Amino acid sequence: MPELFHIVPEAQHNALVEAAYCHRGYHADEAAEGARFCAEATRHGIRTHNGLKALHLDHLFGTGVKGWTPGAQIEEIPTRFAAVKVWNANRKLGQSIAYRAMDTAIKLADQYGVGTVSVDNATHYLWGGGYVIDAARRGYIAYTNCTAAIAEVVPFGGKAPTLGTNPHSWGFPTIPAIGFPIVIDWATSVVAMGRVQQLKREGKPLPPFAAVDKDGKPTTDPAAVTALLPFGAHKGYGLSLIDELVAGFIGGSLPTLRNQWNNRPEEKHGCSFFFQVIHPDALSGGAFALGRNQAQNVKAVIDDVLGHGNEACILPGQIEAEWAKKTAAAGGLLFSAAEIDAFNELATECGHPQWNRSALKTITL
Amino acid sequence: MPELFHIVPEAQHNALVEAAYCHRGYHADEAAEGARFCAEATRHGIRTHNGLKALHLDHLFGTGVKGWTPGAQIEEIPTRFAAVKVWNANRKLGQSIAYRAMDTAIKLADQYGVGTVSVDNATHYLWGGGYVIDAARRGYIAYTNCTAAIAEVVPFGGKAPTLGTNPHSWGFPTIPAIGFPIVIDWATSVVAMGRVQQLKREGKPLPPFAAVDKDGKPTTDPAAVTALLPFGAHKGYGLSLIDELVAGFIGGSLPTLRNQWNNRPEEKHGCSFFFQVIHPDALSGGAFALGRNQAQNVKAVIDDVLGHGNEACILPGQIEAEWAKKTAAAGGLLFSAAEIDAFNELATECGHPQWNRSALKTITL
Repeated sequence: MPELFHIVPEAQHNALVEAAYCHRGYHADEAAEGARFCAEATRHGIRTHNGLKALHLDHLFGTGVKGWTPGAQIEEIPTRFAAVKVWNANRKLGQSIAYRAMDTAIKLADQYGVGTVSVDNATHYLWGGGYVIDAARRGYIAYTNCTAAIAEVVPFGGKAPTLGTNPHSWGFPTIPAIGFPIVIDWATSVVAMGRVQQLKREGKPLPPFAAVDKDGKPTTDPAAVTALLPFGAHKGYGLSLIDELVAGFIGGSLPTLRNQWNNRPEEKHGCSFFFQVIHPDALSGGAFALGRNQAQNVKAVIDDVLGHGNEACILPGQIEAEWAKKTAAAGGLLFSAAEIDAFNELATECGHPQWNRSALKTITL
Repeated sequence: MPELFHIVPEAQHNALVEAAYCHRGYHADEAAEGARFCAEATRHGIRTHNGLKALHLDHLFGTGVKGWTPGAQIEEIPTRFAAVKVWNANRKLGQSIAYRAMDTAIKLADQYGVGTVSVDNATHYLWGGGYVIDAARRGYIAYTNCTAAIAEVVPFGGKAPTLGTNPHSWGFPTIPAIGFPIVIDWATSVVAMGRVQQLKREGKPLPPFAAVDKDGKPTTDPAAVTALLPFGAHKGYGLSLIDELVAGFIGGSLPTLRNQWNNRPEEKHGCSFFFQVIHPDALSGGAFALGRNQAQNVKAVIDDVLGHGNEACILPGQIEAEWAKKTAAAGGLLFSAAEIDAFNELATECGHPQWNRSALKTITL
């Protein structure tokens, strides 16, 4: 169904989000990184992780509960290994950590072919896809995972939520091959809790085996849901465990205590982030069929996958790339009327000028 | 249902598998690596990738069709990057390539913290889990993916099989924490084609959305199946694409031409392998709660996930570890009567002494 969007110039959006972060105590550089990220999410149509969500998360887990630390300095932990970095982020704003970590992993990959950055005492970086898209646009193969803010997901065969929605994000530098980066990016739960709430409001059922009730039994009734299930049964469970294991090796907290800063203070409560970048030249054997170069070979493989009657398939990242094109054509970030109103509540909170909704250009998409 | 197994001493098993490989022209070192791998698969209860399967695959794609090259030398492709290696495997036996690549990735990780080995012109390495279990037992975080031998899987939203079953395998060095390595290892299809054939023999239906018929429509009738579906809809599709993309960057062949050595000879036809190892010290921030060391922290995280009512859950790799224990207790590899008979057919093929089934000890498990 076509939807009406208001067009907000990116500078105007970023000024408000920066003001809101600064009002919460974040430093100018953090506020700028936070706003830049929210613009990226909106540009790619990721409405679940826009500026409204970012500042709501700060309220829930961050400065609202003295969980995150504005102005925190990232501390580099000494390591004997040349191609990796390990950071204690001291609960700095997630977007600031993530942009800096991905930049650092890119520098390591430039030198060593592959580089990783592991982050202890992290906060929430919102949408891992944003960081890998960014790295992929710059020409790198990028991966990130993190442990989610709270335990909402039941392990395969279990009853109690002891895992986060623990996402994985992979980005591939496929612009030279197909015009946009392929981005494989999702949570390891079938659906997010936000989706459950949306279906409850709309009076619609959940897909089967997406969530459980208070007895740990699968339910499709959104009103009965107490926890989520991993996608693909034991396979999604395994993928979710990967994030917890990597975090556990880094120094991560117990999943059921995550972001519960006052519960068992002798335990840690932060999230952990893991970033990895590979330089595409560091994979290349240089022997592509028919004299193709690397990008042409990647294109030939993709064309083969989407040929033979599969022309209707789309590629992961394609919807996001198409939304970014529409955003560029519109000349600003696209928000619904309800989103504009919510941004204006944030403006009131931080004493920033309101967005005049009736003065904004609109577009129906 | 309890099953009767015949106990074959490992040396006796390896002697036959080595003889079979040598009879097909493989060199002694390759035959030994091939046999070692088949013993590992059987030890961990991976009956779908034992010596019988290994030699059957060689018949289908390898020396049986002049696809693989006994005695091939692995060629190292020069790279400017210190933490990676790129190999042209010249269609050497897959198990030989994989063991050597994982050893090399471990050496890189020892020095740089992380290391990758990318392999062009690879063959078939059977079961990626075997290599990551091995690395995890030696104390490393290991990952591998590969492009599968043939295109059997339909991309999400498509009709034609243009993807392999493209597996992913992750191994974690969790022996100090819980006594066995956690191994997350599966194909990106819901089921394997072998499972479809088994259900057809047994007259049982497939799970829903596991396979399609000749019109590309989902079917649960194993007799109607022409191709498989990825698990988790777009998520499994994305995971399958990762293998094709990594392979495409390495120099990989078009998926629908893979292992079809005589179809469009101007194209390549080999598989590609990717290996990555991370030294666990290269992740560690060193700041574990309650004075725990790294292994104790990993154990605490796992205990939290499997606590709170989730005590009945199992961990990925646990079934394989339990089978390895049963194998060790039995004092030999465990095979059914039908498997023993099939090994004796191989013995006949290569002029090796038969296994006297009635002289073998048995155990019911």
